[in-house]
Amino acid sequence: MKALTYTDCLKLEKDYPKPKISDNEVLIKTLMVGICNTDYEITQGYMGYKGVLGHEFVGIVEEAGRNVSKNLIGKRVVGEINCACNNCSYCAKSLQRHCPNRSTLGIFKKDGCFSEYFTLPKENVIEISKNIDDITAVFTEPLAAAYEIIEQIHIKPDSKVAIVGDGKLGLCISLVFSALNIDFTHIGKHSQKLEISKNLGAKIKLLEELNEKDKKAYDVVVEATGSTGGFELSAALVKPRGNLVLKSTIAAKEGLNLASIVVDEITITGSRCGQFKPILRLLENKKINVKPLVSGIYTIDDYKSAFEKNASKESLKVLIKF
Amino acid sequence: MKALTYTDCLKLEKDYPKPKISDNEVLIKTLMVGICNTDYEITQGYMGYKGVLGHEFVGIVEEAGRNVSKNLIGKRVVGEINCACNNCSYCAKSLQRHCPNRSTLGIFKKDGCFSEYFTLPKENVIEISKNIDDITAVFTEPLAAAYEIIEQIHIKPDSKVAIVGDGKLGLCISLVFSALNIDFTHIGKHSQKLEISKNLGAKIKLLEELNEKDKKAYDVVVEATGSTGGFELSAALVKPRGNLVLKSTIAAKEGLNLASIVVDEITITGSRCGQFKPILRLLENKKINVKPLVSGIYTIDDYKSAFEKNASKESLKVLIKF
Repeated sequence: MKALTYTDCLKLEKDYPKPKISDNEVLIKTLMVGICNTDYEITQGYMGYKGVLGHEFVGIVEEAGRNVSKNLIGKRVVGEINCACNNCSYCAKSLQRHCPNRSTLGIFKKDGCFSEYFTLPKENVIEISKNIDDITAVFTEPLAAAYEIIEQIHIKPDSKVAIVGDGKLGLCISLVFSALNIDFTHIGKHSQKLEISKNLGAKIKLLEELNEKDKKAYDVVVEATGSTGGFELSAALVKPRGNLVLKSTIAAKEGLNLASIVVDEITITGSRCGQFKPILRLLENKKINVKPLVSGIYTIDDYKSAFEKNASKESLKVLIKF
Repeated sequence: MKALTYTDCLKLEKDYPKPKISDNEVLIKTLMVGICNTDYEITQGYMGYKGVLGHEFVGIVEEAGRNVSKNLIGKRVVGEINCACNNCSYCAKSLQRHCPNRSTLGIFKKDGCFSEYFTLPKENVIEISKNIDDITAVFTEPLAAAYEIIEQIHIKPDSKVAIVGDGKLGLCISLVFSALNIDFTHIGKHSQKLEISKNLGAKIKLLEELNEKDKKAYDVVVEATGSTGGFELSAALVKPRGNLVLKSTIAAKEGLNLASIVVDEITITGSRCGQFKPILRLLENKKINVKPLVSGIYTIDDYKSAFEKNASKESLKVLIKF
């Protein structure tokens, strides 16, 4: 089968072995996948991962293992990406995302979904309603990661909230916050991208429009830039005793000064993957329109154009159709 | 009057003007003060502060302003160090420590207590019981800062807790945690200092005794080292979804990688000054013995020896008697 792998470079393999399922797994035939910044970061060495890339998908269950209900076969599904042991203290607390024995689809110890077929444990797979088209379905994973913020911290109806960063991560958060009636300001560099948030009714601000009044003005600031500068800006916007949500993995090349975090007693909350069920309720009820975030749909044979498009500054989500 | 000031160097001034009180203030005659690492940091440029140093004290009220009860005169007092406007949204929430209009005794816009006399607003001053001797009273401020952790995060009876750093900050936290029956491991470099925690019934570990089993093993880790290395070690010890309390102001000279904070969804809580009342209850009831932390008591004339003693690696709290 065709599979897009990363070992020392990105490569489309034509004869990658079709995976075999274990008793507890399903085999999924890929319909559509999305490129995430993590995929790009892996090609830059992140996690030291080697194998088939990809973790955002919609597909159809083609085979079911011995311990899996045959009813799943033929169903259109999405799937959570962390494959857990279901046998440890984290799994017991429904924190499979933090299971120390986990593998992660296309990121850690498990081939991803940028291939014609791939496998997932039955616990990870969720059938989706006809109300959710393929394009929307592919956004389930990044939107769930945005929704994770709501699981972790209490955003109150009168909380003053800012999202910093107007890439696809920041915009997915904007879609979720907007659907949940959160009053927020979206701060970024690109007026065209911020326009998407504006159309959702959000307040928007370009970096150059920030002023003294924005300093220490927000109860909750979500950092979604991936840069040290974005982290420091976000820290400057949070009120004393406020919440800074760290959504992007940041490696500071220069020094990072955490003194203000201590002086202003700011809480920083690292935030990663989210559960699928809450976001699927929003999608089923058509409370989120992902279409303005789609920058292009390519075939797997044209993966080079897809990754080039993904790398361009104006791009948001790039999809690949199988 | 005598006053120990920092402008471009540390200097004992013999004829520093005795401060005048406003209607809302009291004049305090200093009995004993403590040297804090912040005092040392100020002499290295922290906060750009210039003036009389010092914020840990016990003293006697000598004069009371027009709006202050005369009953306070002659009373032995300690005092909170942030002088607030009592007129803003933070003050309304009893967060005077975060009042944006505040000055801070000996740290920001207000002469400190390393002098024969100094002033504080009446709201900051608390009379102390005879049960609390002068040496213990001087520890009220640093112990309140340790107690602040308990105000900010919920440490459960079965939480697995670590304190990283065995300087006076780490040991003050150890004293408070121990008094509150928290089950913790004190991790540090100096077996002699850790011995103080051991005598309180705590588990102790030298850095070199840490092993794989300590990684991601603690629900709550309190970072009290002041070094980038200490921060990174603390981050490595916290469980996924755990709490990392940042007690020391850290400026990373080299790069700092926050990726694990995001991947493991760790919450970092910056923590600074605390309220005095909870800690005074412990001190009044003699539930904390600060004496093992006292490394020396000097006179103000001998301030050079006091600061030298404070700088030496074996030292803990150095006190100055007036």
